[in-house]
Amino acid sequence: MDFTAIKALTFDVFGTVVDWRRSLIREGQELGRARGLTVDWAQFADAWRGLYQPMLERVRRRDVPWTKLDDLHRMALDRLLTEFRITGLAEGEVDHLNRAWHRLDPWPDAVAGLARLKRRFVLATLSNGNVALLVDMARRAGLPWDAVLGAEVARHYKPQTQAYLTTAALLGLEPAQCMMVAAHNGDLAAASGLGFRTAFVARPTEHGPGQKTDLAAERAWDVVADSFIDLAARLGC
Amino acid sequence: MDFTAIKALTFDVFGTVVDWRRSLIREGQELGRARGLTVDWAQFADAWRGLYQPMLERVRRRDVPWTKLDDLHRMALDRLLTEFRITGLAEGEVDHLNRAWHRLDPWPDAVAGLARLKRRFVLATLSNGNVALLVDMARRAGLPWDAVLGAEVARHYKPQTQAYLTTAALLGLEPAQCMMVAAHNGDLAAASGLGFRTAFVARPTEHGPGQKTDLAAERAWDVVADSFIDLAARLGC
Repeated sequence: MDFTAIKALTFDVFGTVVDWRRSLIREGQELGRARGLTVDWAQFADAWRGLYQPMLERVRRRDVPWTKLDDLHRMALDRLLTEFRITGLAEGEVDHLNRAWHRLDPWPDAVAGLARLKRRFVLATLSNGNVALLVDMARRAGLPWDAVLGAEVARHYKPQTQAYLTTAALLGLEPAQCMMVAAHNGDLAAASGLGFRTAFVARPTEHGPGQKTDLAAERAWDVVADSFIDLAARLGC
Repeated sequence: MDFTAIKALTFDVFGTVVDWRRSLIREGQELGRARGLTVDWAQFADAWRGLYQPMLERVRRRDVPWTKLDDLHRMALDRLLTEFRITGLAEGEVDHLNRAWHRLDPWPDAVAGLARLKRRFVLATLSNGNVALLVDMARRAGLPWDAVLGAEVARHYKPQTQAYLTTAALLGLEPAQCMMVAAHNGDLAAASGLGFRTAFVARPTEHGPGQKTDLAAERAWDVVADSFIDLAARLGC
């Protein structure tokens, strides 16, 4: 296809740019060692992420007022600390653990791939993460975003249409001038339905060794790549 | 003073980071040479900027619905093309001239100063410029923003309080954790009134050789500097 009309790449972040699961396990193990806790941190990470969609859904349905992801993460964390019988943590330690989401590590190809893609395209987040979370993550990991946009500035969580359309509008672009980059077929389906171009980047171990979903592209997305380096090559960067 | 509580610097952009007047004159002269126009481009630049506050004021008062700065610039430009008797431009040429605001040059100390400041602080725009304008400017000039925020994401123009408070909230910070950096005493007064810390950076030729306003700090701002390099030194970066 012809990519000359595309001005910006808009990125899903959790799972697509960063390896949230391995990073949360690392953070949990560090805390566990420091405080002598015996916890299955892989199970903990999966449980924490498992509460993600149900919590977003309450905001999407307006059962609760707009709540940024940091606060949803904290509500989920408080619940999991009880369920996993983790006690004795000071408020500062719980807050530090909640901010593990600000310290997620990028996939090994992400930073180098983004640097190549940035030469030709505007790079923006289109994530459900809040701005402060994404800014902290970018500074720590060296992610060279031109703009940190997405759910919080739109006050709507993906896949609600406002998250995508507000991001394109803030970039001064039509949806057809934006390419959504994600490791999740559902995210691309929502973006595509609004006129975005689409790039699927496979992250087959996002959910660990037994991952069953999003192992491959489920539709003929405009680009299918197995890394950000591969994506850059396919886009001629 | 103690700067350890400050996490982010929020920047006014037009006049503080970039030299809009000299850049607009340069752009006008380029167009003039290409199209054989005889125009006093300094007068043109001053007239264009002169329409800025009156146009913002109409949005602030809600006489007109929210309008991004690119569109306000274009309305002003269309009027000035008539007043300066500039005719015969194609739509693409007028649009290119309007986007001169996306191609403003930074003051000579800006990029090096921001690089130093970025080591220690989150750097965000808190500008009346729209996101696309600021992103294009940053990519061209090499301005290393961590986040492009301000009027458009708040849908309120400075000095309305929402522009400042929304930017701080998106950064996940209290106003007292943010330092507003501006060459304009009025901008700092508005930010200070909301609890922001303040840094005045003198730009005594922003309005050309005959500048009469904002030549110096008019209050005891937390920091007074004569360049971004000086600001970095005073903040211990």
